[in-house]
Parts: sequence; structure tokens; C-alpha cells
Amino acid sequence: MTATATAFRRAWDDLAPVGRAPDGGYRRFAWTREDHVLREWFAGEAAARGLDLTTDRAGNQWAWWGNPDATPGIVTGSHLDSVPGGGAFDGPLGVVSGFLALDLLRERGVTPTRPLGIASFVDEEGARFGVACAGSRLITGSLDADRARSLRDVDGVTMADALSSAGRDPEALGRDDDTLRRVASFVELHVEQGRGLVHTGDPVGVGRMIWPHGRWRVELRGEANHAGTTPLADRRDPMLDLAAFVGHVREAAQDAGALATVGKVHVDPNGVNAIPSRVTAWLDVRAEDESAVRAVLATLRGYAPTEESWTPVTVLDADLADVAAGALGHPPRLGTGAGHDAGILAAAGIPTAMLFVRNPSGISHAPAEDADEADCLAGVDALATVLGRLLA
Amino acid sequence: MTATATAFRRAWDDLAPVGRAPDGGYRRFAWTREDHVLREWFAGEAAARGLDLTTDRAGNQWAWWGNPDATPGIVTGSHLDSVPGGGAFDGPLGVVSGFLALDLLRERGVTPTRPLGIASFVDEEGARFGVACAGSRLITGSLDADRARSLRDVDGVTMADALSSAGRDPEALGRDDDTLRRVASFVELHVEQGRGLVHTGDPVGVGRMIWPHGRWRVELRGEANHAGTTPLADRRDPMLDLAAFVGHVREAAQDAGALATVGKVHVDPNGVNAIPSRVTAWLDVRAEDESAVRAVLATLRGYAPTEESWTPVTVLDADLADVAAGALGHPPRLGTGAGHDAGILAAAGIPTAMLFVRNPSGISHAPAEDADEADCLAGVDALATVLGRLLA
Repeated sequence: MTATATAFRRAWDDLAPVGRAPDGGYRRFAWTREDHVLREWFAGEAAARGLDLTTDRAGNQWAWWGNPDATPGIVTGSHLDSVPGGGAFDGPLGVVSGFLALDLLRERGVTPTRPLGIASFVDEEGARFGVACAGSRLITGSLDADRARSLRDVDGVTMADALSSAGRDPEALGRDDDTLRRVASFVELHVEQGRGLVHTGDPVGVGRMIWPHGRWRVELRGEANHAGTTPLADRRDPMLDLAAFVGHVREAAQDAGALATVGKVHVDPNGVNAIPSRVTAWLDVRAEDESAVRAVLATLRGYAPTEESWTPVTVLDADLADVAAGALGHPPRLGTGAGHDAGILAAAGIPTAMLFVRNPSGISHAPAEDADEADCLAGVDALATVLGRLLA
Repeated sequence: MTATATAFRRAWDDLAPVGRAPDGGYRRFAWTREDHVLREWFAGEAAARGLDLTTDRAGNQWAWWGNPDATPGIVTGSHLDSVPGGGAFDGPLGVVSGFLALDLLRERGVTPTRPLGIASFVDEEGARFGVACAGSRLITGSLDADRARSLRDVDGVTMADALSSAGRDPEALGRDDDTLRRVASFVELHVEQGRGLVHTGDPVGVGRMIWPHGRWRVELRGEANHAGTTPLADRRDPMLDLAAFVGHVREAAQDAGALATVGKVHVDPNGVNAIPSRVTAWLDVRAEDESAVRAVLATLRGYAPTEESWTPVTVLDADLADVAAGALGHPPRLGTGAGHDAGILAAAGIPTAMLFVRNPSGISHAPAEDADEADCLAGVDALATVLGRLLA
């Protein structure tokens, strides 16, 4: 077994138990105990390699080989948090691969001409406070610090309070130019969240673009009343409106050639014997073209959806993608409907590339998310090769 | 202002803040801090009147005027807990009216020939553990103690643990013959949960029967996956099944002339960018005739609903209803689709009557639930008159 394979298994074993439910699904939310354990793990990996650990204004972690204040560096990394019931690979694969690629570069005797950084972005999934890529959005200024501080989780805890409970200063949040200045370019490795590489038969691919995508909230209001005494004709039952909404969403997505999902619902009061007073539904819409997303929204105008977030199409850096593709023997180039911190950094003007590792089932954001170890190791090798080229 | 009106306002003021949300809705769940405050209030009212306070094996509270171990007594009362976002009257009106009716009887110089008891049943709404009328079901044996102890609330807390946390012994749960033996008959006053008395123009009515009703749970299973990367054709999205289910339920209820409601839904994992792996929906069905309920369920057979509770039709005691109606000048007699502790006691063989107080909007299980003070005072007067007749 190669040193990389051994190190990969050790890292995977270290991370496996953190926030894992009995069904194998992960729950690793920002500023929780699980998050704390993962941050400690990251700090330990950095220390074991003699890297300098820094934390930016949003709490993202950076491990540096070399001094990025002297020369801006090449950065790789991803995130360690998860959606509720998420898989093991979405996020951690990119962080683990960053450390192992650095080991490979050292093993290969590479003498970098500029620093190499490994980043772990906080709250990428937005699972706790509803805004995806919160950590990268905060430091690039695309998420306002005041708005972030007042975001609430499902228990009503604000991000400000969550930060304080985790021993961090919520007043520190804000655009972080000192950190951005250190990043010459960014390469994120991620498990593919589809079966593009299964179809082409490649273990690794290079990112082309990230689809435009957004989140909307719809409030369906009714009149709370007793389920046992209110005649059907007298009811204003928002659960019926939810049923119609879900049907309309699917129909609109089909017509527009987009992806649209109602994955989150909140029923108030959510009692067996109470007609709900209100149902809140969240809508996720993505498509290769923004016009298709807008077409879905236009169809749903009657529901007065409130936009919670919007990310325009992200075209990843063409030169950087060419370098990566050249270094890797021209593997497939993939677009993706999933948002990533790479997209946020790209939108902030940092040249950014993505590498994807084959996902046999295409399943992601679920316990069944998987990748073959051989493909993960091919991903580490590819990442080291690309980083080596950029550091030369 | 009469002494009863003064006492009514004082009691209502005492109870008003307990568990009230900013929108006026109540959240008073069994074995919580709110429940503790309400139990203390009940104990205080009993003590202020020199009544003997006892607590049965399930934790229901009983305040006695006279010794029910010598002669079984006439009992009135209701419950103090609420559904989530419930109204102020459903439950508390019956308990408060019990104390004020006792005051009126004393004021009228009645010398009872048998004891008078006022009961407050715990967990009537089943809002926390899912089984309605848990307190009365436990002491009559229609809810098994082992099953009750293992019921879980939404946070995974078992009823056994909730009881322990509230300083009660979960091992005490079980049929309580010593308590039942003390109850010669039971009269429950309740706010009407419909507009029957609005239509007849009466402040108070007498109960005739309680509709058969039940609760079922339906599990809709899908496949969790990423909302941004899974083609529509590859999805197994249980939110679409929920939409279809809600539509089928309404249609089936209309066809059968029943009431059917999907008021509670649980989505797993409930993430904006995750296709759900599972949606659980709860179904409440009621009708004047059991055959109509069964017709609804037969239509929904394909969803394999699991029965969580079932209560057959409850015919309230005809003789007792005649006594009540005679004492009150023959007000309207009403059936109701709502379940009550009175129904559980009636099913256990205790002669039981119900009085209803007019509800201007018919709304119940919601913050807008209301009753005019004049009607509430008429209710107290009617209850005192009926109890006086039964105690004579």
C-alpha cells in the first residue's frame, strides 16, 4: 500500500465517527460540537505537517506551507460540514486530498516557488443558518456581516450567538482583504454529484462552470382550526396549497428543463388534530441557463416566492482549467448544478479551478454518497499534479 | 359585577400568561415547565377552597369537597394542556368553571349528599407524545402503561423520562381502580368547537355523542439525493407523494362525508438542497358514522397507514343528559367531532355528560379560539345547576 493510501485511510478513519447517525448519515453543522471536533482535526493535520494555521474573520481555517504575506499562494481545500443526513465525501474529500497532495509534493521533492495553502471553509452547506457557502461569502463580502449575525437556526439561535457559544467574536465577521490577498488561485477537489464521470469512464474530471442557482421561500397561509370540528367547506388549509405548490414546481421544472426541489417544509403548528395556520416551503432551482431558472420562477409568481439566495452562473477560470487539463492528460470537463466555495471565490475575482472525483451512484447529500478508494487516490494524485504545475 | 364574574376574570388573568406565544397561541405540553405552573395553579385553587388534593397513578389532579372513599362523588373538570398554538378556552374553561360552580353551590347554600370533585386531566391533547387523552386513557387502562412509557416526543424524550424529569415515578402509571371507584358520574364543560350554538342562538348546550375518530401515520419513502445534481427523471422524491396523498385525503373525505386532515408532517432530512429520503404524514379522520371513517381509510389503503389511535363512537349517558337538559330548560343537544376525557371515562363505564359553551367563530385549536364572557358565566351557572341537581 502506498503512503498516500495509508494516510487516506487514517484520515478517513479519524473523520468517520464525527457526527455520524446510526444510518450512516452525517450531521456536521457550523459552530456545533461536531464542528469543533472537525476544526481540531484540521489543526492537528496542519501541525503534524509543520504548517502555519490561521483563521480568518469568518472562522475559515487556513494551513500554510510558506509565507503568503510575502507571495500570494496557491490554495486548495473544501469544507468539513454537511447537510443533515449527508454523505462522508461532500467536502471532507477535498480537505483530506489537500493535505495528502501536499505530502505527495514533498515526497516528490517539489520546491515550490510560492506558498501552498489548504483551506477549510465553515458552513458551506448552509444547513444550520440557511445561507450556503456562508464562510466564503462572508470573507468576500457577498454575505453582509449584519445579515449573517442575525440569521437564525431552527431553534432560534442566531449566528451571532452560535459564534459566541463557540468562543468566537461575532463582531469579527466581515470582508477579509488580508486573507483574500494571500490567495493567488484556488483549486477545489470535490466528489462528483452526478454520474458524468461514470458515463465517460474517468476517475477524475475538471470543472467547467457552476450552474446559476437560488433558494426561495414560500409562505402558504391558512386558518388554524380544529381538525375534528371544522367542515371541509369552511377550511382554509394550507396543506392543500402545499400539495398544489409541489405539483406546480415539478411541472414548471420539467417544462423549463431545470432542476427544482421542495426539500424543506415547516408546518405551523404541526399538530395531528389541528388544521395548520401556515406552511412554509423552501424551493431550490438550478439550471445550466439562468433563463430556465427564471422561467420556473415566473410560473410560480402566484406564490410570491421570497429570494433567500441567488448565485449567477460561475465560469471557472479557463486558463487554470487548461493548465489542470493539460497536467492531467485532458480528462472530461464538467458543469455542475451544485454550489461550491470555489464558485464564491471565482465570483470574487480569484482564478479558480475544480477537480471532480467519480461517484459511482451519482448520489450525494445522502448517506449512500460514495467514491471508490482507487478513485479518491487518483484524485489526490491529480490534485498534487495540478498544484505542482501551479507552484512550479 | 357578580362574585362569579370577578372570580372568572381573576382565574383567566392567572392563566393567561402561562405558555402564551407572542401571537396569543398557547403551548402547554404535558410534563413541561408550563405544565408545572398550571399544576401549581390548580393546587392553589383547591387549597383556597379547602378541598382535598389528590393525584392519581397517571398524574391527573383531583380536588375533592367531601370524602369520595366514603361515597363515590360527582366529578367535573377538563384539562389545562393545549395543542401547539392552541386557544385559551379548550380545556381551561372546564377546569375554571368547575371551581366557580363549586363556589356558586356554596353561595347558594347547597348541602351535597355526596362529594363533589374537580379533575384536571394531564396530556389531553396528546400534543407531546401523540396519544390524545393520555391521562384518562392511562387510569382507565385503555392506554397500556408500557406503551405510554415508551412514547417519544419530537426531541426523542420518552414519556418515562419526561415523568422522571417532572419528579414523577413512571412506574406508577397504570389502571387506577381506586381513583375510578370514587367517580359516580362525570360532567365535562367545554367550549364548543363549531358553530352549532351560534346557529341555535343558545349560550350553552348539552352533549349527545362524540364522533368516532382516529389517527394514522403514513411513511412516504424516497431516495435522498442532491437537489442540484439529480435529474428529475432519476428522482424518488417523497415530497411528490405527500402532495398526492394530501389530495387523495381531501377527496376521500369529501366522498365519504367525513372530516380528514393532514395537520402534521415530518420531512427527513428537511434540507433546502436535499431531496428528502422520507416524509412522514399524520392523518386525522372523523365522522358521525364509523362507516364513513372506514370508507376514507379504504381509499387510502395504498399508503399503508398505521393506526396510532382509534376511539369508537361515544354515546354519552342518556339519563344524565336528560337530567342536565331538564335542569337547563332543554337547550340544544350537540354531537361533536372532538375527542374528550369525558369520552374516555364514558367508554370505561362511568355515566358521563358534557356541556358546551357557545364559540362565536367556531374556531378552536388556534389562537383565535374565543367565547364571550357572558356565555362563559352562563356556562358556570349551568354547570352549577346540573351539579346541584346531581348532588341533591
